[in-house]
Amino acid sequence: MSRPINFGAGPAMLPESVLSIAQAELFNWQNTGMSVMEVSHRSKQFMQLRDETEELIRQLMQIPSDYHVLFLAGGARTQFAMVPMNLLAQNSHADYLITGAWSQSAYDEATRYGKLSVVARVTAEKLLSVPDQAQWQLNPKARYFYYTPNETLLGVELANTPKIAVPIVADMTSCILSRDYDVKKFGVIFASAQKNLGQAGVTVVIVHKDLLSEPFSYTPSMFDYRIQVKNQSLYNTSPTYAIYIMNLMLKWTQQQGGVPSMMENNAQKAHLLYNYIDTHHFYNNAVAPEYRSQMNVSFNLPTRELEAEFVVAAAQADLLGLKGHSSVGGIRASLYNAMTLAGVEALVRFMEQFRKQHA
Amino acid sequence: MSRPINFGAGPAMLPESVLSIAQAELFNWQNTGMSVMEVSHRSKQFMQLRDETEELIRQLMQIPSDYHVLFLAGGARTQFAMVPMNLLAQNSHADYLITGAWSQSAYDEATRYGKLSVVARVTAEKLLSVPDQAQWQLNPKARYFYYTPNETLLGVELANTPKIAVPIVADMTSCILSRDYDVKKFGVIFASAQKNLGQAGVTVVIVHKDLLSEPFSYTPSMFDYRIQVKNQSLYNTSPTYAIYIMNLMLKWTQQQGGVPSMMENNAQKAHLLYNYIDTHHFYNNAVAPEYRSQMNVSFNLPTRELEAEFVVAAAQADLLGLKGHSSVGGIRASLYNAMTLAGVEALVRFMEQFRKQHA
Repeated sequence: MSRPINFGAGPAMLPESVLSIAQAELFNWQNTGMSVMEVSHRSKQFMQLRDETEELIRQLMQIPSDYHVLFLAGGARTQFAMVPMNLLAQNSHADYLITGAWSQSAYDEATRYGKLSVVARVTAEKLLSVPDQAQWQLNPKARYFYYTPNETLLGVELANTPKIAVPIVADMTSCILSRDYDVKKFGVIFASAQKNLGQAGVTVVIVHKDLLSEPFSYTPSMFDYRIQVKNQSLYNTSPTYAIYIMNLMLKWTQQQGGVPSMMENNAQKAHLLYNYIDTHHFYNNAVAPEYRSQMNVSFNLPTRELEAEFVVAAAQADLLGLKGHSSVGGIRASLYNAMTLAGVEALVRFMEQFRKQHA
Repeated sequence: MSRPINFGAGPAMLPESVLSIAQAELFNWQNTGMSVMEVSHRSKQFMQLRDETEELIRQLMQIPSDYHVLFLAGGARTQFAMVPMNLLAQNSHADYLITGAWSQSAYDEATRYGKLSVVARVTAEKLLSVPDQAQWQLNPKARYFYYTPNETLLGVELANTPKIAVPIVADMTSCILSRDYDVKKFGVIFASAQKNLGQAGVTVVIVHKDLLSEPFSYTPSMFDYRIQVKNQSLYNTSPTYAIYIMNLMLKWTQQQGGVPSMMENNAQKAHLLYNYIDTHHFYNNAVAPEYRSQMNVSFNLPTRELEAEFVVAAAQADLLGLKGHSSVGGIRASLYNAMTLAGVEALVRFMEQFRKQHA
């Protein structure tokens, strides 16, 4: 049986080789005679896995030694509160750039912990766009500047890291390892795993050591970066299997040539799809070219009925997960690292066929 | 290759049939052609899995319809803060029974959210024991009474549910489904999965609907029971694979005969081991018989050197995870639901052999 091609926004498809290893080792991991999910999080074997996983992500992203790397539970949404609870203090300020639903949610969550400002918002005139940084209302007293480099709902991406005087906090859930971010430019990077890092259930948090400080007194211990750092993310039983799958996914990324290779593939995949969309009025993408996402390509068809028909016909052709987010509708093809060029080519062939039948 | 017998305190061993299904379905779950870890948490298939998992646990524990069942991330330790953040209000009270390290940790975490009292503490005269309920200093104004029915470190268990006028909150991480708790007697029950419910990464929270109320203003959205209830635990991407393994584990529990069958097996396994310990001075358990845990049997040998030797020799005989918790030392055999009687018999045979060689 051939596998369908999964364009879902996450949990996302995984490379077949990652699934093959997970399947082969499910009963007997590293000659323990046990599944990795049966092994103690404090065992020598698991501690080695944890250390190796950290080392892999440090190598792939070139993370300097003055950053901590944590593996936490609760998803990116947990970080929406954890970041301000750790980085803010009484009556302190933070700046947020709102480029879509995820940065908006992060902003909403953080408002209860400090004095927040929106430095700029995504604009929707002819096309979705982000105001030039020269127009942003930056607060020099902000404890941090927060943004979401890639917004998944409509596919809005800032390819270049803004130049900001205060520490930058970035939700890289949907773009980590997809291009060569310079970690040194950031204060905190976080990413839940279910797109480019494996399965849902674990979130990577990369935090500069100078940002560790006394959180608000009401902060749960599990939310205190200092406690998690001190305990090497093992303050409680960590999501061991999700960390294992991340380990496999990072090794796969490395084998493929690391971030430079991912970046090249992603550019090629996105170019193919956007180029096809742009050559036919039947399909329409609403994002200004310089802010188009490489990871999530959204587009519309002439009518909602055609969009619904498109999703059904695509699924029959084993092209899955193409329905846009419920809040925005339309079509969305997510092209995370595990998506192949052949997968995108199959989608484009299907789109051309569908267009010819319905245009 | 025969599997070793894993007496670890958690992540714990899983039934072979559960691992077999997980392995067989890893590439193709429910004819989706995808792994369950690649499927959207909002897909029809995963929603059905979530619903079925809830229904299974409702049936197994006979959970009345006025209780909500949640599947949350962050482990039991997250509940140590989440419970008081949801159940307490400004200057309100809560009662804690301290029977070991886990209830102590829960108490420590909750102190920042309210006025807490310790109603009684485990005593250690000749044997570890819990004062009679008649001696507990209960506060009638407490919002809730908190206890840990089974404490894993030394193996102290309260088999009977205390009779308390206020809602009871119980951390059942290490004893859920091991005996027939009457859910109606509880306000909140929580249990992380890595002992009797599958793999680490998901925590079941059973909460009476009358206990849902406005949490403290600084409570993270992810910690707000009302938000999780409203979103059927899908406020963000849930740990889908851990929920899938829990589903398999619950089906296995049902196939074995449900809680009555587990209870009988657990009593038999624990009796065999305690009975052996009690008949030989070489081994010593320090818990008063009426508070001995069925799940975690701790014991000492005449010297620390012999204990270290015991752990090494046992591992060579494929009896793993027997080292006591680092804070208390000694030996600990965890006999969760997936542990077989044959496994305990093998341990007893080894203990007898070791005793003969070293007594």
